Amino acid sequence: MKTIDRSEISEFEKVYRLNLINSLSGYKSANLIGTQGTSGENLAIFSSVIHLGSNPPLIGFIMRPNTVARHTLDNIRSSGVYTINHIPKSIIEKAHYTSAKFDEDESEFEACGLKAEYKDDFIAPFVKESPIKLAMQIKEEVPIELNGTILMIGEIQSVHLEEKILLADGQLDLNEAEIVSISGLNRYHLPKEIDDFPYARKEELPNFKT
Amino acid sequence: MKTIDRSEISEFEKVYRLNLINSLSGYKSANLIGTQGTSGENLAIFSSVIHLGSNPPLIGFIMRPNTVARHTLDNIRSSGVYTINHIPKSIIEKAHYTSAKFDEDESEFEACGLKAEYKDDFIAPFVKESPIKLAMQIKEEVPIELNGTILMIGEIQSVHLEEKILLADGQLDLNEAEIVSISGLNRYHLPKEIDDFPYARKEELPNFKT
Repeated sequence: MKTIDRSEISEFEKVYRLNLINSLSGYKSANLIGTQGTSGENLAIFSSVIHLGSNPPLIGFIMRPNTVARHTLDNIRSSGVYTINHIPKSIIEKAHYTSAKFDEDESEFEACGLKAEYKDDFIAPFVKESPIKLAMQIKEEVPIELNGTILMIGEIQSVHLEEKILLADGQLDLNEAEIVSISGLNRYHLPKEIDDFPYARKEELPNFKT
Repeated sequence: MKTIDRSEISEFEKVYRLNLINSLSGYKSANLIGTQGTSGENLAIFSSVIHLGSNPPLIGFIMRPNTVARHTLDNIRSSGVYTINHIPKSIIEKAHYTSAKFDEDESEFEACGLKAEYKDDFIAPFVKESPIKLAMQIKEEVPIELNGTILMIGEIQSVHLEEKILLADGQLDLNEAEIVSISGLNRYHLPKEIDDFPYARKEELPNFKT
């Protein structure tokens, strides 16, 4: 095994360090966040969407205020709402390029060939091509002073999904929807289920001691 | 498409809601967190490990103080350190059962058939079977008042990994290491890379307008 210590990490060239540290948290979720601002629609890819709790239904994501995602932050602050759209295999290249630096009045939907979709009276745009879409209301911005990022916490207002991926127990068949995951900065993966296990009880522990 | 609104989510039976909301953030990382306490070693599975920043190298995870993970929290508070170990396909069942409720003086390593490994003078145990292991120092606990969870933020002190999975640009080949990802509460997946794309520049945008 190779060991890399803290001082080596500090001394790495910037892009190498970005690549390494971004890989070290494992596979990440892949989502497009849609917002509405005074200059129009915005869409940006995020790999930091995370489950925070089910009751109330809370989802978080990490915002880096000094990046191109700034428009997303401004729009959430002004409108209070956003959409989270899962990324299927069929649109990964289009989704990836939403991370390019577009002007404020340019729509990433149009530039990247994705269709904006509106539902009911929710003002933030959904991604039509996405099989799982969430309407979100911002509940809290939690500043992370250690590095100037923000944990954005939102509550799920509604869920829109393809009926065939909703399983009888409430879980989703993400494989069936061909949802992807991301590793590092730019690597896209298609996960395939290998197994599931029941709720873990000590009394029902398999015999692991050999 | 099926729509589920906020009031329906509130009315779902508890386990159904847990299953659904835990599925809605997409694929999650799969890690074992190892700690050392006055009653011995502790090991617990987490699916909320998240990248926070690369310089300084920060990783977070979500702690639910009222769950069996309480021993992990106590040990991090008393020792200041922990390990994050990626889960390869070969140990998913053992890793899953670390979530059972063991007594404080029982070792999940022993009960679940995993080997504790110590490196240098770091007091928290690593998982020998894991191909990517991180030594972490806690930097901040960020309370999330909306639901009583805590964002635990740690700084990477050292990285231990199989040499063959470290790519030339610093990214890791998680496929080669057979690292898994989790969806919902108990579904384990093996991701397979489908593509990667360069850093996105507007001037180099593919022609998506058809």
